[in-house]
Parts: sequence; structure tokens; C-alpha cells
Amino acid sequence: MNEFDLIQSYFNWQSTDPNVLLGVGDDAALFDLEPDHQLVTSTDTLVEDIHFFRDTSPSDIAYKSLAVNLSDIAAMGAVAKCFTLSLTLPKINHDWLKEFSASLKKASRLYNVNLIGGDTTKGPLNITITMMGSIKKGKSIQRSGARNKDDIYISGDLGTAALCLKKMNEGIKPSLNELNKLNRPIPRLELGSALKDLASSCIDVSDGLEQDLSHILNSSDVGATIDAQKLPLGEELSQYIKETNDWLLPLCGGDDYELCFTADKASSSKLKKLSETLNIRVTKIGSINASNELKINGYDGSSASYKHF
Amino acid sequence: MNEFDLIQSYFNWQSTDPNVLLGVGDDAALFDLEPDHQLVTSTDTLVEDIHFFRDTSPSDIAYKSLAVNLSDIAAMGAVAKCFTLSLTLPKINHDWLKEFSASLKKASRLYNVNLIGGDTTKGPLNITITMMGSIKKGKSIQRSGARNKDDIYISGDLGTAALCLKKMNEGIKPSLNELNKLNRPIPRLELGSALKDLASSCIDVSDGLEQDLSHILNSSDVGATIDAQKLPLGEELSQYIKETNDWLLPLCGGDDYELCFTADKASSSKLKKLSETLNIRVTKIGSINASNELKINGYDGSSASYKHF
Repeated sequence: MNEFDLIQSYFNWQSTDPNVLLGVGDDAALFDLEPDHQLVTSTDTLVEDIHFFRDTSPSDIAYKSLAVNLSDIAAMGAVAKCFTLSLTLPKINHDWLKEFSASLKKASRLYNVNLIGGDTTKGPLNITITMMGSIKKGKSIQRSGARNKDDIYISGDLGTAALCLKKMNEGIKPSLNELNKLNRPIPRLELGSALKDLASSCIDVSDGLEQDLSHILNSSDVGATIDAQKLPLGEELSQYIKETNDWLLPLCGGDDYELCFTADKASSSKLKKLSETLNIRVTKIGSINASNELKINGYDGSSASYKHF
Repeated sequence: MNEFDLIQSYFNWQSTDPNVLLGVGDDAALFDLEPDHQLVTSTDTLVEDIHFFRDTSPSDIAYKSLAVNLSDIAAMGAVAKCFTLSLTLPKINHDWLKEFSASLKKASRLYNVNLIGGDTTKGPLNITITMMGSIKKGKSIQRSGARNKDDIYISGDLGTAALCLKKMNEGIKPSLNELNKLNRPIPRLELGSALKDLASSCIDVSDGLEQDLSHILNSSDVGATIDAQKLPLGEELSQYIKETNDWLLPLCGGDDYELCFTADKASSSKLKKLSETLNIRVTKIGSINASNELKINGYDGSSASYKHF
């Protein structure tokens, strides 16, 4: 099987978007952006043994590759449109490809994005997706917009993916819910899109809250105080913290893919309503100040957010 | 050094394009597309031991990663605008990164494109660039546009990169010109852009003329006859073929990154003038017919174009 058969067999699905004018199969793809909109792009790579275990299912790998990129688009308040896939594979394994391709297609339909092109090469397993989205000019939510006295919020709950990883590294079988948090994160696209009219800054928590919130603080040239006791936790993690008092997982564990954002105090009732409408938990965890420091009440352990190297 | 220091040190250059509204350092990048234009995207990955030798300089790797993507944009007749870089590295090697980064920056300035974002991860060396360009609506040159009786042209010359690779694999030292053809291909951006008003179809020759021209024929549902004796050859390759009568290199050797395109017979004088203006050799090598076959006069060897797996 050559590259072209591979693409035809596994990655040439029909587009569901009339703005994809030319998809897989030419030198490049063509996409029509709406007038008065800006192109929004993000890229994320998943590498075996670093971002997923060797025995992770191709279905989970495909889903997560797409979801982590969608999460970045969500954090801008943008709408995801289409993506390219660069797939480096050690060899052609039809069972693997069939499962990977079916899962990627299903996830792309679920989140209403189209695969428009890419590259397949031989080498150590590496999956790089570049996601393209759009947003009305001037409406994106950037990391640099947090202002003194803004409230700090987090969507969903934190730390369960990190707990799952910890258990797996220790040879303990995680629950299905924990596995789903690690392998099937839900990109907060609807929330992100709604936040473009409410949030002053936003980031998706992929490397740990402490580190990712710090990016907002550095970009916005402000400080913050958050309260560890207020961090939203899932059931398993609540239980774990009761037993261990180990706040490292929700503070510094990675792979949450929740949105951490700031908003003016005046927005709190609108945010409450939005949370109810979307049925997504939104928790106030602290507030911005003028100090240039991140203070975490109720935690005096070390910082240990994810380092890429 | 963490990921953020790495990006700040090596990949956070000042943008030279006012349409890059937000570059490296947020969840995603923002780019303003001109009105009435379409987004054009291509992705190419370079993997160690597959696309370059282990001892290839970081400078050459960076240049080529960018050039091969630019070549795809050129083949659409589009203008390249900005790109994302996903860099997977086994470890932080500052000497390597310094050289890679300096070369990528230099090449991006040379071709007037901006790095707007990306990802850095730990793992076996893998460089994926996604290039974004733009073209006026409806003006792109696609593989599917070749028509019966069109002439077939090729830019530059073919096979020297493949000769270089052959020599290196045989332990023979290639000339500087041969090395440059392999490591420093020149993306035909000016030619591609001019061809959008002249060519009926176009592809960049990366996997070998025979295979890449076949993509045009398949997409356009036509056949072609080309003449091996008419293939444009560089000096070293002419000499090699005189000695060996081995036409495999210009026909099926990869890494040429020349444009193979078709055009109506009526365009031949305009193409001649364009070739003179741009100082780029443009050679007519055959013509399209209604046969659904690719016939190569003067060559009866086997097909051996590049297979990705």
C-alpha cells in the first residue's frame, strides 16, 4: 500500500462544510473564511510514551489528538472549522489505521470540523494536528486581557486525568470515569464561544492550573490569589484528597483541558446563567490583583506543573 | 529550560506582517485574510533517517522543512503567508536549536512568511510545518484541470537531488551544487503565482515526475505522452545519463520541488516570456491526450517513484 492508497482508504471522507472548497488530495487545501472574520490556528503534537501509553487504543489517540487542538480554539472563543493531520507511523498497520481513522472521523463529525489535508510519513509514531478556526474580527479572548479585581473561574473539574495517570503509573486500575478524563477530554467549545462576550482572558488548562494561570498573569502583567479549597474536584479526586491532603493533582496535574478564564465582577450573574444553560460547572476560584504573584491559599507544597522537556 | 523558555529563546521572532494579529505565545494565533481570498493550507513532515540523514545540518533541515511546504503553496498558484511549527526533539540541544532557529528565521524572511505558532514536544526528531497562504477566490491551480491537447511543462531541471542522494548512499561525495539541490530546494513561488493565470493544472514534483504527473492525469481523467529526451537536466545529471543511460533519476527520483504544469497551446509564447522575466527555465516535455495512460518515449524501464511506506 502506498501513501495515496492509505489516504484514500483511511482519510478521504466527504466534507460536511461547503466552505471546504478543496480537501484531501491536492498540493494544498482551499477554505473559504467568512467575511469580517479572522483565521485562528493551533497545533498540537502527540508522541508515544510521552503523551500516551504504548497500549493506548488508536481510537483514544485519535480522539485526544483532535480534542486537545479543539480545546485551544475554544480558549480563544473561536469556532473550529477544519484541520490538517500529519501522521508519522512506524509501519502500515491496517487494524490500527482502521480504528484510528474511524475514531477521528467520528470525533470530527461530533465537533463539526473537517479534515482538509495532511501528510503521512514513515517513522516513530507522531500525530500532529493543526486546527483552523474563525472568529469575528476583534472578538478573540487572549491571555493578556486579565485586569485587576477580575474574578478567576475554571470550567468542569480539575485533577482527575492526573489522578488516572498516577494510578496507571503505580499499576492501579483506574475507573472508567478517570480513564475518560485522561483519554477523552471534552473541548469546551460552546463555553469558549459564549465567553468571547464575557471573559477578559482565557487559557485551556493542559499543563496544570498553576502553570497555565501563570501564563495569563504574565501576559496580563497582573497577580492573583486563588483558594485551593475552592478548586472544583470530581468525586474520585475529592476522596483522594480527603485521604492524602495532596493538592498537587488539581493544582499542577496536566491534561484537564478545562478553561481557566477571568471576568469582570459585574459578569458573575451572566456567567452563572451561562453555566446553567450549557450545563457546565463553572467555579470561581480566586481573583486578580496588582501583585505580579500567584498566591495559592491552603497550599504550601512545591510547584510541579508539567514540563515538556 | 522549559518549553516556554525554549519558545522565547528560539522561536518568538517579531512578525513582519501586520496581518499577523497574534503570533507565538497564546492558545492559538490570529491572522487576517484579505477580503475575497481563500485560505490555502499544506502540511509536510520531515523525519530523521527518512527525509534527511542523521548528520544533515540543523540549518539545512530547517530550510528544507519550510521550502517543501512553500513548494506546495506555489503549486496552487497561491501566496504563502504564515506557518506553524511542530518540533519534536529527543532533548534540548542548544547548539542544534540555535542553528535550526537562525536558519528557519532567515528562510522565513527570505520567503516573506511568518511563524505564528506551534508546539514543542519530547520524542524522536520530527519536524512538521503547516503553511497557510491565500489566493483570490476561484484562482487556484488544481491537479484536476488538465485538458486534452494541453502542453506539459516542467520548471528548472530534474533528478539532481536524486543523484546526490544516490551518491551519498554509495559513499561518493556529491558536489556542492548537488547538495544544494537536495538540501536547499528553491520553492517556485513567483512562478506558481504567475501560473494561476496561465496553467490549467499544476503539481510540485516531490516524489518523482512519473508519479506526480500521474496524479494530474488521474485527477484530470486524461493521459499524456512525455519524451524522456526532453527532460531538463543539470550538468552533472546530463553527464551521468550520458555514461549510464539511466533515466530513472529524472523520471522517478524525488526531492525536485519543481513545478510540473499543463497549459493550453495558445499560452506557449506567454510562458516563454514569463520564463525569461523570472529567469527560470521552463521546458515543454510532452502533451496531454485522451488515453488515460502515461507514455514515456525513450524509456522502457520500471516505475520506481518514491513510496512513503
